[in-house]
Order: sequence, then C-alpha cells, then structure tokens
Amino acid sequence: MPYPEEAEGFMINELGKYQDFKKQSFKLKTFGEYDVDIKIECCGVCGSDVHTITGGWGESPTPICVGHEVVGKVIKVGDKVSHVKVGDRAGCGAQVWACLKCGNCKSDNENYCPEQVDTYGAPYPKEACPNETISQGGYSSHIRVHEYFVFPIPDAIPSHLAAPMLCAGLTVWSPLVRAKVGPGKQVAIVGMGGLGHFAVMWANALGAEVTVISHSPEKKDDAMKLGAKNFVLNNEEGWAKPLAFKFDFVLNAADMTHTFEIDNYISILKVNCQFHQVGLPDEALPSMKAQQFMPNGSSIGASHIGNRPECLAMLKLAAEKKLFPMVETMPISEKSCAEAVERVKNNKVHYRFTLTDFDKAFGN
Amino acid sequence: MPYPEEAEGFMINELGKYQDFKKQSFKLKTFGEYDVDIKIECCGVCGSDVHTITGGWGESPTPICVGHEVVGKVIKVGDKVSHVKVGDRAGCGAQVWACLKCGNCKSDNENYCPEQVDTYGAPYPKEACPNETISQGGYSSHIRVHEYFVFPIPDAIPSHLAAPMLCAGLTVWSPLVRAKVGPGKQVAIVGMGGLGHFAVMWANALGAEVTVISHSPEKKDDAMKLGAKNFVLNNEEGWAKPLAFKFDFVLNAADMTHTFEIDNYISILKVNCQFHQVGLPDEALPSMKAQQFMPNGSSIGASHIGNRPECLAMLKLAAEKKLFPMVETMPISEKSCAEAVERVKNNKVHYRFTLTDFDKAFGN
Repeated sequence: MPYPEEAEGFMINELGKYQDFKKQSFKLKTFGEYDVDIKIECCGVCGSDVHTITGGWGESPTPICVGHEVVGKVIKVGDKVSHVKVGDRAGCGAQVWACLKCGNCKSDNENYCPEQVDTYGAPYPKEACPNETISQGGYSSHIRVHEYFVFPIPDAIPSHLAAPMLCAGLTVWSPLVRAKVGPGKQVAIVGMGGLGHFAVMWANALGAEVTVISHSPEKKDDAMKLGAKNFVLNNEEGWAKPLAFKFDFVLNAADMTHTFEIDNYISILKVNCQFHQVGLPDEALPSMKAQQFMPNGSSIGASHIGNRPECLAMLKLAAEKKLFPMVETMPISEKSCAEAVERVKNNKVHYRFTLTDFDKAFGN
Repeated sequence: MPYPEEAEGFMINELGKYQDFKKQSFKLKTFGEYDVDIKIECCGVCGSDVHTITGGWGESPTPICVGHEVVGKVIKVGDKVSHVKVGDRAGCGAQVWACLKCGNCKSDNENYCPEQVDTYGAPYPKEACPNETISQGGYSSHIRVHEYFVFPIPDAIPSHLAAPMLCAGLTVWSPLVRAKVGPGKQVAIVGMGGLGHFAVMWANALGAEVTVISHSPEKKDDAMKLGAKNFVLNNEEGWAKPLAFKFDFVLNAADMTHTFEIDNYISILKVNCQFHQVGLPDEALPSMKAQQFMPNGSSIGASHIGNRPECLAMLKLAAEKKLFPMVETMPISEKSCAEAVERVKNNKVHYRFTLTDFDKAFGN
C-alpha cells in the first residue's frame, strides 16, 4: 500500500464514463499539523457522486475518486489536533477544509467559507497544502482531513449507518434547524429518496408535524415508519389545493425540480416562508416571475451541507434516539461501485447505499 | 355628479392604449356597514398603474380606473365603522378589502388574504358586494373602501406626500421591517426610483447602514440626502466583488430584474439572507439553478404591499421624523394622466408623481 504519501481508491478517469471505476493510487495532501488521517472502513454513495462523475454538474478534474460519507479509524493526527485521537472511530462529510478565519467561518458558517475545499475534486489553497493537491474522496483506503471536519462517531451508531449521515443527513438537518423546525411547525418534505427519508426522520424527531409529498405511493409505509403524519401524492391533479398556506417550511429533497409546477409548491407555504432546495438537478429551475412569490410573500432558496456544531448535534440526537437511516450495503469493488452509482442514478436505492468491507479491498 | 351610486374617473378603455384616458362614470360597490367613502383630494401614480394599463402584467377588466395611492376626505361611513369619522383626512393604498376571517387575516397578513380585493380591476366577492362590482381606483372623484384599509393621515404629512406612501412607501416598508432591518444591519437598495428612494429613507430611519446600488451616477446626491452611506454603480465591471457576503438584506426595487446577472446580487448577501423583490418586471426572471443559492445558502423572494399595523407605524414614523418622499405634482386631467403614466413608464420622474386638484376636475 502506498500510504502515507498516497492512498488507493476506485476512481473515474473520464467524466461521463461514470461506471468505469478503476482501482488506482492518488496523492494525499501534505500532512499538516491540524490534519487527521482516517483509514476508511466504509463510505456512503451520494447523489453528488453521481452528478459529478456523469458530468451533470459540470467540469471536475480527473482522475477523480468520489465519496464524501466516510467512516473509519483515526490512524494519525497532526501535532495540534485536539478533537480526535489515534484509534477513534470518526468520519467526514462533503467538506475537508475551510480557512476558519473569515467572517463566515467565525460565525459557524464554515460550510459557506469562500475558500472551502470540497471532499473531492477541489484544489487545496497553496498555504494549506504546499504539494498542490486536488482533494480525493472516500471510495478509497485513506482520507486526510482537517480536524474541524472530522466527527467522532457515537458508539450507538453502526459505521454503515453513520456514513450517510455525514453528507445526506447533515444536508437536510442544517436547513431544518436553521428554519427553526420544531413543535407546532408544519413541515413538508418533497421527494422521499436518500435525502428525503433523512429529512422525514429528523423533522419528526425535532417535533414538527411532517407531510411527505411524493409521486411514489409505495413509499407511504416507509414515510409513516420514519415519522410522517401525512402522505400526499403530487401526481394527482389538484394535490396542492387542500394544502394552501399550510407549511412553515417546504424542504425539496428531489432533484427533479426542473419538472415541477413551481406555483404548486409555493402555494402550500405560509406567509413569508421558504421553499428550500437540497436536491440539485443538473437542469435549470423552471422559468419564474417575481410575481409568483407575491401571493404569500414567500421565497425560494437552497443550502450547502451544514456546520460542525450542527453535525455534532445531529449525531448526538441520532445516537440518543436510535434514529438510523435505511441503508443497503455492498462490499466495495470496481463492480459494486459501478452498480451502486447506476442504482443511485435511477433512484433504485432503499434509501441510501454504503460501500463496506474496505479492509478486503485495500488490506489492513 | 353621479355620487353616491357612481363616481367619475379618468379611465382607460383598452389595455395597451395606456395614454387614452377618458373622464367617465363607473359604479361604486354596494355600500356596506364597514365601508368608508372618501372624496379624493389627490392620488399617486404608481408603476403598477402603468404595468396594468399597458397590459404588461396581463389581463385586466376594462374600462379601468387605476390609482391606488389615494388621499382625501371621509364623507360617509357605514354604521360599524370605528377607525375614521366623517371629515377626517384619510387614504387608502393598493388593497380595499379582505375577508378578515382567514388564518392570514387573523395573523396580520390580510395583505395575503386569498380573497383580497385589489384597489382596482378586481371583482368583489358576492357576499361583500351584492351589486357585483369590479373595484376602481383613485384617478377619480370618490372611492369606497372597507375601513380596515382606510388610514388616517397624520396632520404633519401633506396630502400629496402622504399619497405615495400608501402603496410605494408601504411596499418597501413591510419587507424591511419583516426582515428586522435596524441598527447594526447592512441593507442594499437596488434601483433608486419611486420605490427605491422610499426604501433608502425608511431603512436609514430604521437604523440600518444603507448602500444604494444603481446604474445612474446622477442619483448619488439624492441617495445620500435620503440617508444612504454608500453608493455603488452596478454598471461598472466587478462591482459586486468588494461587496461579497456584506448585506443582511438586499431589496430590489428595480423592475429590470430580467436583465440582471443574478449571481452578482446573490453574492453580496450574508449567509442565509434574502434577495427580496418589490420591483416587478413584466418579464420572467433570468434562468436560475438551485446551485446558485448554495455559496451562501441564500434565497430569492418577493412580497405584496404590507398590513394595516405596518402602514400605521410607517405613517407615524414619517410624521414624527418628517420623512417625506420626493414628489412631483400635476393637476389631474386626461392630458396630465397621459403624461404622468408615460413619464413613469420611462423612469422620468423625480421620484414619485401625485395627481392633484381633484376638486377642479370633479367639482366640490
């Protein structure tokens, strides 16, 4: 094994050829005093991985190793690391670095740091990384991450269930808590896939009354199991009418927004409330006029993962209440990576995927 | 004069022929126990009037009498009216009726009542108006309005300066106060026309630091006079860069949003803050992707006028601090109506227009 200068991963060499995973080596960033090396045990498969390697979200450097729902064991820490120690089980999500000095970082918005480094496909700033490295993700043997983006995994959460929390879980947790979702609030979750099923579980655990809006009647049972009180089919004519002005927050976890009649989704919001997107289609949103927001003074927005305190709070609640996502697993290999991304692309997952058995693929 | 069953007004008989004002009679709604009749003294000319009679905002019933910035004298009140009395100087804005029973009305959001009646061009619900009337606006001798939408004008505010407050003033006041604009907040006002110049004045009076973003260098002096601290020209390359993540609230008072590079306006927002529109172009917004909101977790929205408590608070502050808009006046006539709407259409007003001398046009 090439560690500690390099790691091995299942990589894509050309965007678009998104199933052609090859086991290859890649360079790790220069080890810094705040860095943590994790020997990876398992990694979730995220819709972002698929949008990236298909090229749907645009250019990315290749070869690329995707994966940003990483859990493993800490095997090395920099001199100034204080959040974790060697031997800890820990993980990282979709971000591996931020400046931690700017106004955003200083106000617990490091997930909006203009210098942030995504977990894969992003160049590190020179000062953080003298060897000029592009970040590489977690379908791999090891990952090197600034400790601020390393989260200890509570004992109560099995690794394969913790992994998807670190991107998917946090991506919906953060906007829910920032929208002050809690007792007395009406929340709609649009689309019950990988993101949506987390959102139902969190919003219910936070005390809100949850309505799932979906075009898949077969998902009703799972929705109710995860804590939804209501289930609405949005492919039935006039579905939005009875919900007019009902919701304090509509969280759109579907990445099909370009096909939506947006007026319907806006009409179900209370006055001055938000249609919030975490599902990110490759395509542009439907054409909109400013006037469409006027019947209820509403807005449309989006967000980007969450911050460290939010991640720690989410993991704590999940551990305390035993709130776990529904996850399929497969031992990692070139073949299983290909199958996993194809099924995520076609929404044929129930509801997240975690690639496991990394020790068999990469050795101990 | 045809009052009290009818009123006289300067009306448009065909959308698109927006300068062909004719003095005509129109029917007033059935007088109800909460109704207030105002003999109009003056009326502001609003961008909405122009967008309506040009047909830019879509269909409206004709003949139509526009105008929804009305000030005059109360000459008759229904049995249950308690907010004003005969002889009071009072006005109304862009709304003349709401159910006052629904969830929105009960939570001081009567401006978002699904049954609301706009001041002109809107059918009254049958129960509120047995004679099935379309509302008609204030380029006219009289207006009949539910008392909830009638506002006493403080003595300190001259009528021709109070009139534009009732739509333009309130339209920017409401989103500013709902966004909690005040001391310590950074607010950008985009476009310093009729709406924008009010917004600068209000935001400054509320205690925020105001930046005007405009493409008209000649407006800088007025902006500073109205309370702006900074003035930025948005037709200079790279104007948005130095403003990245600066503003708690960006209020877009321009109706040219369809020509904007939206990313620039989003980039100047602090994390989780809003680009809020009160200027309403005829055209659709530029094509957007959900991803565009992700660098700062921002949103884009709009609002519709304001509620009664907000209107009363605005008038009180304006009277106390002698905060008056910059207003041109013209005695009302077929010719002056035509000239006024043409100048508003071409942004050749400094900064609002009030049509005056209604007694000369309509008699005493």
